[in-house]
Amino acid sequence: MARGIFTALLEDAEVAALLGDAAQARAMVEVEIALAKVQAALGVISSEAGRKISAALADFRPDLDELAAGTASAGVPVPALVAQLRRAVGGSAASFVHWGATSQDIVDTALVLQLRQVLEALEARLVRLNDALVRLIEGHRDTAIVARTRFQQALPTTFALKAAGWLAPLLRDQQRLRELEPRLLAVQFGGAAGNLAALGDRGVEVMEALAAELGLACPPMPWHNQRDTLAELGSWLALVSGSIGKLGQDLLLMAQNEIGEVREAEGGSSSTMPQKSNPVRSEALVTLARRNATLIAGLHQAMLHAHERDGAAWQLEWTMLPDLASGTAAALAHAAELAETLIVDRERMAGTLASTRGLLLAEAVGFALSEHMARAAAHALVKDAVGRALASGRDLLAVVAELSDAPVDWSRLRAQAERPLAADPLVQRVLKAVADNRRKAT
Amino acid sequence: MARGIFTALLEDAEVAALLGDAAQARAMVEVEIALAKVQAALGVISSEAGRKISAALADFRPDLDELAAGTASAGVPVPALVAQLRRAVGGSAASFVHWGATSQDIVDTALVLQLRQVLEALEARLVRLNDALVRLIEGHRDTAIVARTRFQQALPTTFALKAAGWLAPLLRDQQRLRELEPRLLAVQFGGAAGNLAALGDRGVEVMEALAAELGLACPPMPWHNQRDTLAELGSWLALVSGSIGKLGQDLLLMAQNEIGEVREAEGGSSSTMPQKSNPVRSEALVTLARRNATLIAGLHQAMLHAHERDGAAWQLEWTMLPDLASGTAAALAHAAELAETLIVDRERMAGTLASTRGLLLAEAVGFALSEHMARAAAHALVKDAVGRALASGRDLLAVVAELSDAPVDWSRLRAQAERPLAADPLVQRVLKAVADNRRKAT
Amino acid sequence: MARGIFTALLEDAEVAALLGDAAQARAMVEVEIALAKVQAALGVISSEAGRKISAALADFRPDLDELAAGTASAGVPVPALVAQLRRAVGGSAASFVHWGATSQDIVDTALVLQLRQVLEALEARLVRLNDALVRLIEGHRDTAIVARTRFQQALPTTFALKAAGWLAPLLRDQQRLRELEPRLLAVQFGGAAGNLAALGDRGVEVMEALAAELGLACPPMPWHNQRDTLAELGSWLALVSGSIGKLGQDLLLMAQNEIGEVREAEGGSSSTMPQKSNPVRSEALVTLARRNATLIAGLHQAMLHAHERDGAAWQLEWTMLPDLASGTAAALAHAAELAETLIVDRERMAGTLASTRGLLLAEAVGFALSEHMARAAAHALVKDAVGRALASGRDLLAVVAELSDAPVDWSRLRAQAERPLAADPLVQRVLKAVADNRRKAT
Amino acid sequence: MARGIFTALLEDAEVAALLGDAAQARAMVEVEIALAKVQAALGVISSEAGRKISAALADFRPDLDELAAGTASAGVPVPALVAQLRRAVGGSAASFVHWGATSQDIVDTALVLQLRQVLEALEARLVRLNDALVRLIEGHRDTAIVARTRFQQALPTTFALKAAGWLAPLLRDQQRLRELEPRLLAVQFGGAAGNLAALGDRGVEVMEALAAELGLACPPMPWHNQRDTLAELGSWLALVSGSIGKLGQDLLLMAQNEIGEVREAEGGSSSTMPQKSNPVRSEALVTLARRNATLIAGLHQAMLHAHERDGAAWQLEWTMLPDLASGTAAALAHAAELAETLIVDRERMAGTLASTRGLLLAEAVGFALSEHMARAAAHALVKDAVGRALASGRDLLAVVAELSDAPVDWSRLRAQAERPLAADPLVQRVLKAVADNRRKAT
Repeated sequence: MARGIFTALLEDAEVAALLGDAAQARAMVEVEIALAKVQAALGVISSEAGRKISAALADFRPDLDELAAGTASAGVPVPALVAQLRRAVGGSAASFVHWGATSQDIVDTALVLQLRQVLEALEARLVRLNDALVRLIEGHRDTAIVARTRFQQALPTTFALKAAGWLAPLLRDQQRLRELEPRLLAVQFGGAAGNLAALGDRGVEVMEALAAELGLACPPMPWHNQRDTLAELGSWLALVSGSIGKLGQDLLLMAQNEIGEVREAEGGSSSTMPQKSNPVRSEALVTLARRNATLIAGLHQAMLHAHERDGAAWQLEWTMLPDLASGTAAALAHAAELAETLIVDRERMAGTLASTRGLLLAEAVGFALSEHMARAAAHALVKDAVGRALASGRDLLAVVAELSDAPVDWSRLRAQAERPLAADPLVQRVLKAVADNRRKAT
Repeated sequence: MARGIFTALLEDAEVAALLGDAAQARAMVEVEIALAKVQAALGVISSEAGRKISAALADFRPDLDELAAGTASAGVPVPALVAQLRRAVGGSAASFVHWGATSQDIVDTALVLQLRQVLEALEARLVRLNDALVRLIEGHRDTAIVARTRFQQALPTTFALKAAGWLAPLLRDQQRLRELEPRLLAVQFGGAAGNLAALGDRGVEVMEALAAELGLACPPMPWHNQRDTLAELGSWLALVSGSIGKLGQDLLLMAQNEIGEVREAEGGSSSTMPQKSNPVRSEALVTLARRNATLIAGLHQAMLHAHERDGAAWQLEWTMLPDLASGTAAALAHAAELAETLIVDRERMAGTLASTRGLLLAEAVGFALSEHMARAAAHALVKDAVGRALASGRDLLAVVAELSDAPVDWSRLRAQAERPLAADPLVQRVLKAVADNRRKAT
Repeated sequence: MARGIFTALLEDAEVAALLGDAAQARAMVEVEIALAKVQAALGVISSEAGRKISAALADFRPDLDELAAGTASAGVPVPALVAQLRRAVGGSAASFVHWGATSQDIVDTALVLQLRQVLEALEARLVRLNDALVRLIEGHRDTAIVARTRFQQALPTTFALKAAGWLAPLLRDQQRLRELEPRLLAVQFGGAAGNLAALGDRGVEVMEALAAELGLACPPMPWHNQRDTLAELGSWLALVSGSIGKLGQDLLLMAQNEIGEVREAEGGSSSTMPQKSNPVRSEALVTLARRNATLIAGLHQAMLHAHERDGAAWQLEWTMLPDLASGTAAALAHAAELAETLIVDRERMAGTLASTRGLLLAEAVGFALSEHMARAAAHALVKDAVGRALASGRDLLAVVAELSDAPVDWSRLRAQAERPLAADPLVQRVLKAVADNRRKAT
Repeated sequence: MARGIFTALLEDAEVAALLGDAAQARAMVEVEIALAKVQAALGVISSEAGRKISAALADFRPDLDELAAGTASAGVPVPALVAQLRRAVGGSAASFVHWGATSQDIVDTALVLQLRQVLEALEARLVRLNDALVRLIEGHRDTAIVARTRFQQALPTTFALKAAGWLAPLLRDQQRLRELEPRLLAVQFGGAAGNLAALGDRGVEVMEALAAELGLACPPMPWHNQRDTLAELGSWLALVSGSIGKLGQDLLLMAQNEIGEVREAEGGSSSTMPQKSNPVRSEALVTLARRNATLIAGLHQAMLHAHERDGAAWQLEWTMLPDLASGTAAALAHAAELAETLIVDRERMAGTLASTRGLLLAEAVGFALSEHMARAAAHALVKDAVGRALASGRDLLAVVAELSDAPVDWSRLRAQAERPLAADPLVQRVLKAVADNRRKAT
């Protein structure tokens, strides 16, 4: 996170801060406060101890250097944290800080609290991007562009449909987010070995009350050594950044000078070539997608969490999750900025279509002819005509008209290429899905 | 898949076959038949053509060598397939095979049909594993075992809770499967460029009818260049195998001679050491989890699918998905076999607990003492006693009893260690979640 | 390997066979024969036993189904193999088969023998590719093409230099191969626990003699649980396929219709679009590079090989290595085919340069002007001129000539753009490095 | 890098600083100074400009915030850097800063300068670790320990041989480092498009002089879009951390309470369990190995670097390399600390061997008996005896002695188990390889 001059484009300041040291330390304090509160309410500790702990820690900001040193020696910051908290509370109440809890209860539950905020931030960026894409789609319902398959020109389509293809997966991502949240945003509270032994027969009560106090779900049992919900989150982040990476790659390709269909509003300058405008944000989308696709493997490896706690697997998560989340947030922000400000060159799109001399209509010509002759014969005729057109540089429709007297309305066919509105019902379906999705979200 | 002598343990014959060449070729034929049927029903092609295609292809099995050769030249098997199908149909109907479709429509929709069967097979294995784990849990509600955190003995717990921790993520995986299926099991039908251009204004009708005919969902728009649903499936497979890999790793560790708490019923023999029994299936679970955690990165990289079709990204999926699915199926089967036949050594578990000379009760002693003195003083006393016990090899409770006259019922404390039933309410919660889950599934 | 209709492009039949079941089984037999031979020569077993074993196994082909079944039960095929071999040898000599060896000695040494052949096959493909690239370079020393940085046109360069950039890393790969071979091609012989205990004080002698018999290096100690040489091989394979993947991606980009600088001689056909020619081999190069970049992570994970043997880590290697090697071989063959047959369109390259209306000379103009005025002033003038040229669509040199009366020879400058031979000394350096490399190899 | 409280164990302060913002900025300045110097010496720029630039920048420290902002807008910090440098130089010399160079020349060459220091730091840590392992080996030449294969006890061996197995791959890593350095530590200087066009016919001269000035190798051609040397470095880092990760995992397993053969001198404390001592550094070694094994995939993906410069691929490297290098340095330091201070419990090792009641001698008994009877009969007898010993809990040698009257010296056999010095010649070979390696290094 926030790693400096080379990776300035690849971080999201807000999300990086939400997962940063200070936020993490404070979230751990909040878990300890909530624990003391609910234990006091349930009579597990005295109400006086509960009150004193809450009061003393309400604004407590841990010393981060001490926590780092504590981690270096214990492999986890909680012993150092608890020592700080007990000093801050003082007196006999001090010993009721962290009552019946273990390091992982504090770290994991704090992480969940942080992730709740991270998901809110990501969802806001997702909504912004969706809105920007909807506007882009709506503005280009009749903008014709060549569709490209396997890096080759294929058929005319609309830019609206292309952009709808960027949007559609994000709708599924929003649905996925709603589904995974109840699994992920769950309290972790199990005590030293995950069986709540220290609290005798009060363990489950405390677990449930702590969940309620923090507004989190209460799982069937502590999940300290079940890391599937974090790997699922990582996969979701990589799904989001992967779909956005596809958008970025499409823009990079469309912004090539020889294609020139789009341009970033604020391209990057070159240190030596004054004529250049580099697609800086589009590149960042590709970088972030490929980085997340790499990191996700580490989170899955970390699922092999030995026994009741595995320090090695646990630390591995922490080297991956913050970059995954901050990178996804940065990708969402860049993509929204791009969608909002993208310079779309309709003339260039139309020019490319025109320059294809009817060749992209080869499939359509075949279908049109097959209304007047056998499909196989139509196909053979088109193939012959394509060969002649390629060799001579002439327009395909002109060549076909010479080879066949079938009563096809060639000018209508050509018009369809220029306004390929067959795609529009699909665009409308996506816009309707957006509306449905918004309803669900509210 | 089915790769031979070294990887015999890492494949599932049924799932490998469902994703194998013959199944894939046949699934593609079924998509072409369904397409002809619905197009005939909608009047897009003649009902005679539809009938002839259905009849001629009903039992048609493509020549697989020809398809492989076709892929080597075209990068995709569909041109070679369509040529075979047209020869098989013959006459004028032949040219209505594959009407308005493109290669990817056939391959992707066939894949979805295959995956529907794969998911059924996986779900059956999941259910078998769940059932076996439930029986294992129920049989060991009062089997005491030492919990281990960070590779060190921590506290007494029950083997039931340990096994419940293997089961709990699988319940979430079943939930996830229900959620992802409607997204994944969706028809792909978009024509050459994904905009259904060849079918004029009949495109959406055909797409919807094809989905209905095949029992698939109909997405807002063709998803040919939106690969999130396949990456999501891959992540799910890696989540499942990851949780099972944790189970396998725990068994490997518990089966070490020095621990000896479990043993595989049919251990592997050594080529030279007659006394050995190797934990072959447990190893395979770890291998498969780490393999899937590796492969999943490739599926996420493949999300950067350029423009309307990207042959390079598309082929990458096919080198990953079958291994992911077959490996997960093999892992589920091995895990079920292990859970059904595992030899659990209660005496050894109890013996290990006994050999710890009360040290694992250190936390419990602290809590017990703190009912009779200040928490800090109790903690200091326990720390002192632990030092003395470690140095002298004496039992911790005996040392504590000498150092303190607090009226603690030491024998009751020790009894709790031998039957650590504090864990049982958590076990019951997991068993209840299983029951709830079964209700939802039916 | 050889997985069928979808992955026909991604396999190399020869290398897949070298790593296939039959080859592996036979290589294991050869290790057992060599072991018996050297033990007989050293008097560790009787010379009669040695003779009988060699004779009986000289042409022995193991039953592969039995080996697969044996792996499924023991996790390794060697117990089943040794049983077959002993049956084949019969009599009292039978028991001297596999004398003092362990499964891993046989499997790992057999693997090394197989890899020796694989590396020969790969080297031959590398040489073919190098030769083809040299011819391509030599044929295009004065073919001008636009260099593209960050997906934008940058400056004129030569196609020879571009191709030299594809070749240069392969020279380093050949050097790397020469360096890693002595580490990789080393005998593994350690007995059951890697300390040669079963052979008393004869262990090292047998290890050295076995290495000599097989033409392999003899390492300081058995490497059974040191997997760095295999991970190094995997990295090398991924380096090779990565550099070739860059070549493939460049070709994909250059083959876009809008650029059209190159074309595959045998492009793939489309199932519906007769005008299309798909860059099938270029795509495969990208797929294989990204697959190998994924798989390499698994080989590195497998380095965490527990204690004296780790079945889980060991099996993980076998799920990765054959695909890595066969995929790299396929990539080399596709790349050689492409380099040998690539259709290079010089006119199109020149046309693109011409169409840039002098803008790519912006940097050169700046340098030329700065010989006649302050650098900063020259830079400002060029920036101004670029803006005017972009806005008006006029040629940059014409605009500059209007803004400045500096006595620059503009036609010479333009000529340099058309024949950008500044690049040629670099091309010559690469060709010289090829020659030097060939000398080293022989 | 330096990411705080949770990852304090996973960073190396020195290496993180060498790759940090300030170091990177300064290294870029040094490249610009060297460039001006050699261009002045060659008469490409005036000697006065060269002198002024060198003088003005000698102690210049760039403003890092400005560089970060510049990266956010241009995707690379060099335009912002050059602007700062020109302001610092002032006057007419200012415009000769960065003469004929491009961003990537500066960034990549600066990176190489930084990596040269990083490799020195890593080599120093490698030497320290090697020395510590040699001492550990030498101190335990006759320390018997059970070898474990597939997580099961196998045979007696020595702890020296086990430690030699940790050391042997590091010797190969040192050899690899010597081999890769001349490839990696090479100047990058190619100008805007990698063909040195801006310098006319002086390009190669400047490239060679710049390499000489900086003490770097001069490659055949600029390597800006050939990223194999960086991927090779990444692989090397992952090889090193992978071998060390194996060491860490072995220590984790040996430190389990039930095995207790080793203990970290400074174990981590628990927040709740006073009796625990957590193997904190061993865990970190496993975490770092698995992290690096994950990240390496990203560096290989980044090899698909499009055309003459690919911003997306380039940035991807920067998100991976610093963590790989700093993590490897941290792993080396932890491993050295562990090797220097590890508490080795010989009694416990001996006790485990003793507790196996002769079972680990099964293979040795078979070999001993086969000197007196047919090998097959001996094998059958041992198998029978193992079964009886396992069932009865009796000592294997006692059971065998009852079943056979072969004149085997059983007490000598048992003595070998207690001092399994068959391993020692292998240990000596490794120590000799260390000595040879040291000679080569100096």
